[in-house]
Amino acid sequence: MKKYIAEFIGTFTLVFCGCGAMTINEVTGGAVGHVGIGITWGFVVIAMIYALGDTSGAHLNPAVSIAFACAKKFIWKEVPKYIMSQFLGGLLASALLVYLFPMSEFLGGTHISEIIDPTRGFVIEFLLTFFLMFVIINVSTGSKEVGIMAGFAIGGVVMLEALFAGPITNASMNPVRSLAPAIMSLKFDNLWLYILAPILGAITAVMSCKLIKDENCCQEG
Amino acid sequence: MKKYIAEFIGTFTLVFCGCGAMTINEVTGGAVGHVGIGITWGFVVIAMIYALGDTSGAHLNPAVSIAFACAKKFIWKEVPKYIMSQFLGGLLASALLVYLFPMSEFLGGTHISEIIDPTRGFVIEFLLTFFLMFVIINVSTGSKEVGIMAGFAIGGVVMLEALFAGPITNASMNPVRSLAPAIMSLKFDNLWLYILAPILGAITAVMSCKLIKDENCCQEG
Amino acid sequence: MKKYIAEFIGTFTLVFCGCGAMTINEVTGGAVGHVGIGITWGFVVIAMIYALGDTSGAHLNPAVSIAFACAKKFIWKEVPKYIMSQFLGGLLASALLVYLFPMSEFLGGTHISEIIDPTRGFVIEFLLTFFLMFVIINVSTGSKEVGIMAGFAIGGVVMLEALFAGPITNASMNPVRSLAPAIMSLKFDNLWLYILAPILGAITAVMSCKLIKDENCCQEG
Amino acid sequence: MKKYIAEFIGTFTLVFCGCGAMTINEVTGGAVGHVGIGITWGFVVIAMIYALGDTSGAHLNPAVSIAFACAKKFIWKEVPKYIMSQFLGGLLASALLVYLFPMSEFLGGTHISEIIDPTRGFVIEFLLTFFLMFVIINVSTGSKEVGIMAGFAIGGVVMLEALFAGPITNASMNPVRSLAPAIMSLKFDNLWLYILAPILGAITAVMSCKLIKDENCCQEG
Repeated sequence: MKKYIAEFIGTFTLVFCGCGAMTINEVTGGAVGHVGIGITWGFVVIAMIYALGDTSGAHLNPAVSIAFACAKKFIWKEVPKYIMSQFLGGLLASALLVYLFPMSEFLGGTHISEIIDPTRGFVIEFLLTFFLMFVIINVSTGSKEVGIMAGFAIGGVVMLEALFAGPITNASMNPVRSLAPAIMSLKFDNLWLYILAPILGAITAVMSCKLIKDENCCQEG
Repeated sequence: MKKYIAEFIGTFTLVFCGCGAMTINEVTGGAVGHVGIGITWGFVVIAMIYALGDTSGAHLNPAVSIAFACAKKFIWKEVPKYIMSQFLGGLLASALLVYLFPMSEFLGGTHISEIIDPTRGFVIEFLLTFFLMFVIINVSTGSKEVGIMAGFAIGGVVMLEALFAGPITNASMNPVRSLAPAIMSLKFDNLWLYILAPILGAITAVMSCKLIKDENCCQEG
Repeated sequence: MKKYIAEFIGTFTLVFCGCGAMTINEVTGGAVGHVGIGITWGFVVIAMIYALGDTSGAHLNPAVSIAFACAKKFIWKEVPKYIMSQFLGGLLASALLVYLFPMSEFLGGTHISEIIDPTRGFVIEFLLTFFLMFVIINVSTGSKEVGIMAGFAIGGVVMLEALFAGPITNASMNPVRSLAPAIMSLKFDNLWLYILAPILGAITAVMSCKLIKDENCCQEG
Repeated sequence: MKKYIAEFIGTFTLVFCGCGAMTINEVTGGAVGHVGIGITWGFVVIAMIYALGDTSGAHLNPAVSIAFACAKKFIWKEVPKYIMSQFLGGLLASALLVYLFPMSEFLGGTHISEIIDPTRGFVIEFLLTFFLMFVIINVSTGSKEVGIMAGFAIGGVVMLEALFAGPITNASMNPVRSLAPAIMSLKFDNLWLYILAPILGAITAVMSCKLIKDENCCQEG
């Protein structure tokens, strides 16, 4: 039970801070700033990994849970319970943001910039989550020295992707992080893409791991 | 005695640098910038934890001292002495800022943005301190690997919260950090909120810890 | 074979994220920002070192591979295979950026600012790569404590050099990182400089190492 | 001899990157930005500590060398040799910046903002170096966990102080870092302050250490 509560609180914190940064930026006319939003996303992931990693693994993301299960590093029957915990945490965060900032139109939801089409948006979200999961799976099977810095490296990927791809797709990499504000703001444009692309990107990263590490990265342990 | 001096110097440094960043930003018409202020808050906390953690635990915040006492990880009779040390350190910092920048009106004090009401401000400060104390209590009871990065994770939360919530409530999370500039600038609006919400948020985080970690996070040690 | 795939994926990720940040900044009229670009470059290097360091050493840069070979810390006959893997990874990244952002003119390629001449640009790129390789060679022969932070220190150098020298030379430090976008955007101005200066700078750093560390930094191991 | 070369190269790198960031910002009309300059100062210190800490201690600053000698953690007769190495490294960096950017007026030198008087500037530089040396002396006598993060905490202080106090005094904290560009740009206003205040601030920090740590922080070791 402890691990579901950890995923619930962790995803709640992730969505409240990250989507909150975008919401506050919207309602204040840009007071947080693009760099401020990117740092918020990265460092909330870093903090949650160090706080909750020992308890639940700090997935906070259905794509990560599914990909770990594909890699046989996580039990399949846990996946629905993790996803439900993550979803409820994200939804509570978005509901709170509605209460706090009723004037917000987007609530930090994810959208495809008009300068690209949804197919390209799909490719970008696929690649962003591929990079993220590629780092997660490789640092989580690395040496002890790597293990100390793992949370920092993973949160760093979230930060850099939010910074460079944020202006194009809002750099979701996480179905729950897109779904929660979409439900509360009733904006479902391209939502399929934000659910499908991260899951496929994360699974591809796990499969690529066999090409780089010895087989043990895709075995139980 | 060493630990009270550590809390005094640590809180002095925290308030001088953090409120100093906001004060210098005010008197220069924005030369520090929002991201500069957020990085200042985060990295002064990181530096103080690594410098003073072994001596006093580097609380630097009455809400943290009270919450640790609730968690039975800190002796209640030490709490008033810690709070007094923190208060005197913060007050000296604000007094020095008055001497250095007499033209400053706010001295880096905390205020509720006019786009929300004080009740919502209370909820935000409650949540910000909940997140902060949630990370503190979880990393301080984690594995040795987590222990190395604990100061970084905690300071990272202060940085990200200053960045995303700064434009709304100035992201206090710390009664002394609000009280010291309030006294020196004679601006007491909503001060009750900045004293009460962090304490309640930090205590709630400690209580939630039982849901995630084994009982030992709320025992002496 | 695993190490060549690691270099291929690592350099692909490096060029896609780093040059992608500059490309997206170009096509959005500055939405990523200079600080956002610098953080992207630094943190993608950090993430790749922790993810791939155990497998291939995470060179991701022909200048680094050549310099390590000069230092006798890397076998010369591996150098062409590493460079080819890095080159193909970078080229695929640039090709993908062409597909995703056909309206981009520069694709994140490197150029010498008109406020200096190419000779000075050469000196700057020489020095930037000297500093980078100087840190790489010193942290990779340091104590275990240093080893934990090595990836962070190295990525930090990439970030700070992108930030301070980016406006003058785009802070390449890496022949492949310049060559890949040059080929795809057909812009070859000063390309010789971005190939020669990093290699010479990195070799010089390796030679200087003998002046600082004991001989073992230039022996096999 | 190795340690003097380490101090020479380290201070050369520090001044070239840090003052270079300010010089490039000047000649490009602000392309590096205030946050970019602050990150450059902080991360060059971080990189140099991890690269050179084992060899020379990575002082890179006469105030730090003198303060360590006061703390009996460094031999007095080494102090002049360290300072000379640091001075020559800084001077070479400033000379190179003159060659690269002859149009620069300030070369990244330190100046007191007109919104305060030199006395207040003195107090600020005293406090900035006090905070820096306070962190240095405390992390360098801390536990092994603290030792891993020591370079990060110290560089973080340089970054945050450059960010918050940069607009007022340019946050020197280092006589050589002020002297080198002053000599090459022939601008000596308030130079006495930038030599005296850091040295006094660093010595005061060392003396305060006795109040916090056990005596061993001021003994040879």
